[in-house]
Amino acid sequence: MMTQYAQARRGTITGAMRRVAQRENLPVETIRDEVAAGRLVIPANRLHLAGCQATGTALDPCGIGRAATTKINANIGASPLASDLQHEVRKLCWAVRWGADAVMDLSTGGDLAATRQAILDAATVPIGTVPIYAMIARPDGSVRAIEDLTAAEMLAEIERQARQGVDFMTIHAGILREHLDAAAGRTMGIVSRGGSLLAQWMAHHGRQNPLYELFDDISAIFAEYDVTYSLGDGLRPGCLADASDDAQFAELDVLGELVGRARDAGVQVMVEGPGHVPFDQIEMNMKRQEACCGGAPFYVLGPIVTDAFPGYDHITSCIGATAAAFHGASFLCYVTPAEHLGLPTAEDVKAGCIAYRIAAHAADVARRLPGARDWDDRISRARAAFDWEGVFAEAFDGDTARAVKAATAPAHEDHCTMCGRDWCAVRISRDLAARRRQAPAGDK
Amino acid sequence: MMTQYAQARRGTITGAMRRVAQRENLPVETIRDEVAAGRLVIPANRLHLAGCQATGTALDPCGIGRAATTKINANIGASPLASDLQHEVRKLCWAVRWGADAVMDLSTGGDLAATRQAILDAATVPIGTVPIYAMIARPDGSVRAIEDLTAAEMLAEIERQARQGVDFMTIHAGILREHLDAAAGRTMGIVSRGGSLLAQWMAHHGRQNPLYELFDDISAIFAEYDVTYSLGDGLRPGCLADASDDAQFAELDVLGELVGRARDAGVQVMVEGPGHVPFDQIEMNMKRQEACCGGAPFYVLGPIVTDAFPGYDHITSCIGATAAAFHGASFLCYVTPAEHLGLPTAEDVKAGCIAYRIAAHAADVARRLPGARDWDDRISRARAAFDWEGVFAEAFDGDTARAVKAATAPAHEDHCTMCGRDWCAVRISRDLAARRRQAPAGDK
Repeated sequence: MMTQYAQARRGTITGAMRRVAQRENLPVETIRDEVAAGRLVIPANRLHLAGCQATGTALDPCGIGRAATTKINANIGASPLASDLQHEVRKLCWAVRWGADAVMDLSTGGDLAATRQAILDAATVPIGTVPIYAMIARPDGSVRAIEDLTAAEMLAEIERQARQGVDFMTIHAGILREHLDAAAGRTMGIVSRGGSLLAQWMAHHGRQNPLYELFDDISAIFAEYDVTYSLGDGLRPGCLADASDDAQFAELDVLGELVGRARDAGVQVMVEGPGHVPFDQIEMNMKRQEACCGGAPFYVLGPIVTDAFPGYDHITSCIGATAAAFHGASFLCYVTPAEHLGLPTAEDVKAGCIAYRIAAHAADVARRLPGARDWDDRISRARAAFDWEGVFAEAFDGDTARAVKAATAPAHEDHCTMCGRDWCAVRISRDLAARRRQAPAGDK
Repeated sequence: MMTQYAQARRGTITGAMRRVAQRENLPVETIRDEVAAGRLVIPANRLHLAGCQATGTALDPCGIGRAATTKINANIGASPLASDLQHEVRKLCWAVRWGADAVMDLSTGGDLAATRQAILDAATVPIGTVPIYAMIARPDGSVRAIEDLTAAEMLAEIERQARQGVDFMTIHAGILREHLDAAAGRTMGIVSRGGSLLAQWMAHHGRQNPLYELFDDISAIFAEYDVTYSLGDGLRPGCLADASDDAQFAELDVLGELVGRARDAGVQVMVEGPGHVPFDQIEMNMKRQEACCGGAPFYVLGPIVTDAFPGYDHITSCIGATAAAFHGASFLCYVTPAEHLGLPTAEDVKAGCIAYRIAAHAADVARRLPGARDWDDRISRARAAFDWEGVFAEAFDGDTARAVKAATAPAHEDHCTMCGRDWCAVRISRDLAARRRQAPAGDK
C-alpha cells in the first residue's frame, strides 16, 4: 500500500515504473530514480491501476517529468447547463483520440460522482479533478455557499474521490490570507475558480486557507490511495499585466513548502503554474518554479502570450506552452479556442489537443530527447519521396492533410506541393541530385 | 532620385521616414538613423510612393527593422490553374483586412504583368515579387526552360517590375555553384523554387549563379527606383533534419557579402531566412544572421518547429515566428494551414494572417516595445469589468469572439467566462476586492 514515490525511495521498481520505462524508452532504473527524486510523477491511484471489473479497463501508467516526453492534459466536464454522463465519456475518448495524455474532469453540473465514476471506469489515461467543485455543486445545479463548508466536509469529499480512483487532484493549498491584499490590486484579480472560492472562505471567516491547514490530513488520504498532488496556483495571473507579480510568487513560495511536506508524507506531487505570461518571462518563470519547488514537475496552463486574440487562445497559448516545455515544464494543460468566451465544442477540444501536441512535440525535439525528431524525419523523407500515403500515414492528423491536399489537386508521384509539377522545387532538386550522382566526378 | 538609404546616409529626412516615424510613434531622427545604419528598411518604390493616378491609391510607407514593430507578409498570386486579375486584388484586400503589413505577389499563372499592375495600383502596403517566376512563366500556363534564360532577359524582367512600382524583390543571388554538393546530401534538398531553378541553371551551364554575377547591375536598377532587396535564401532548410546545415550557412555568408555590396550601391536590403528550424536553434539562427549581415532586417518564413503536423503549419510556424521575432527577426512571412499540401483558400489566408499577427504582437510585447502591451491591457480591463462590447471591440477578430461567446450564452454584465455566474472567479474576486475596500483597514 505504498505510493510510487515511497517505493522508489526504498529502491523498489514497480510495475507502473516498468510500464513508464517501456513507454518512454528509458531504463527502468532511470524512472525509479527520477520518481525517488520527485522529478517525475506517475499519477496512478492504486484503484485505477487495478482497473474496473465491469469495463475491464485499467489505467495505463503515464510518467510526467523532465526525463519523459512532455505530456498534455485536456479538460472535460459537465456544466449545470449541459450534463450527460455518456456524453462526458465520449468527450474523454475524443480528447484521448486527439492526443490527450491525461484528462481532468472539471464537472460542475449533473451527478458529479456518477460522471466521475463513469469517466474513471472508461479511462486508460490518468484522471484529475478539482475536488472543491464537488464540495459546493448541488445536484439541482445550484451552488452551496463556500463559507458553509467545514473541514470535515472538505476531507470527506477528497477521500470520496480518492476512493473512486482519481489519479491526481488540484488542491489550492498555497493561496494564503496574507496574499489577498496583493491580489486585490491586480487588473484581473483572481481568475482561478478554486482560488477565488478559497479567498471568499478566508474573507468570510477571517481565517487561514482551510486546505493549507488540512494539508497533512489530505496527504494521509493521498498516501493511502497514491493520489498525486497537483498543487493549484489559485493566484495564477489572468492577464499579461498580472504576470510574475508579488501575489503569484508569494503563492509559489508556499507551494514550494508544500512540495516538501507532501514528499515527507510519501506523496507524489506536481505544481500548477500560469496562465498568462509574456514570452520573455516564460524562461524565468520555469526556472523559478524549479528552484522553489525542488524539481517537482511543473504543470502549466498555456501560458497565453497575448491577451488580444480571444477566439484564438489555443494558438496564443501553445506558443507559450512550447517555450514553457522547452524551459522546464513537464505537463501542459490545453487551452481551447473557446477559452475566455464559452464552453468548448468537440471541434474546439480537437483544436486544443492538436495545438498542444504540437507544443509538446516541438519542445521535445528542441530538448533533443533521444528519438524525438525521428517522427519529423520520417515524414520529411516521405515528402521528399513524393510518398503522399506515407505523409498522410505519419501526419498527426492525416485525414485533414489528405483533405487539404485533395481540395487542390490529386496526390502526384512526381511533385510535392501546391506549386504544380513545373514549379516543384523538390522535383527539380531531386532531378539535379540524381544527375549529379550519374555524372563523372569531374563533370559536376 | 535617391533611395531612402542614400538620403538617410546624407542626413536627409524624407516624407516616407516621417510617415514611418508617425506610425511607429518614434522620433523621425531615430527612423533616419536606423535607415542609415541599414537596420531598418522602408520598401517604397518611388513610383508606388507617388501613387496610381487611376485609382488614387499610393503606398503608405512601412518600416521594417528592429526599432519598429514586427511586420508580417502574406503571399498571394495566381497559379496556372486559377488566374483572375480581380480575384488577386480581392486577395490583397482580404490579406490586408486580416493584418498583412506587406503582400508578395507570387503569381505563376495568367497575365503576370497585368496582375502585378492591378495589385500595385490597389495596394497601400508594400508589394514584393520573386521576378524569376515571371522570367519563365508563359501566358499559356507553360513554363520556359530556365536554362534558356539569358542575363539580358533576367535584367529586363527585373527592370520591368521595378518600373511597375514593385517595392521589394526576392533575388536568390546567394546560392552558388559551390553550395550544390552540400545541398545534394540533404533530406529535402532545395525547397526554394527560385533556388532550385537557379541550381538547375548552374548545373546546365556549369557556370556561376547569374543573379550573383549580375548583382551590381540589379543594384543599379534598384537604386534608380528604390526597390529594396529581399536577398532570397535559396538553400533554406525544408525540414528539421536540414536546419542549420553547411549549405544554409554557406549561403548566409554570401548573403552577408551581398548586403555590403547592396549598401555600397545605395540600395536598401533585407535578408530572407528559414523555413524549418527546431525551437532550440532559432535564437542561434537569428544571432548568426545579424552578425553575418551587418544588422540587415531578417525576413523569415515561420520557421516551422515540427514537420509532423501538415494541415496545421500556421500553428507549427507561428511558434517559431514568435521566437524568431523575439530573438532578432523583423519581418515574418506567414504560412497557412495549406502549406505543403495545396493552394490556400480565403479561410487559410485569414488563419495564416491571424497566427502571424499573434506571433508579431507577442514578440513585440516580449521585446517590451514602448506601448506594445497597452492593447492587451485594454482588453484585460474590459474583461475584468465584464464589458463584453469592449472585449469584442478591442479583440483582433471581435466577430469570431462574439460568435463563440454567443454559442454558449449571452454576454452577461456580472460574470465573465464559460463557468457561469456562480462559478465566475472574476466576479467573486471583484466582490471580495470591493468588500475589502469598504471594510475598515483593521477589519480585513
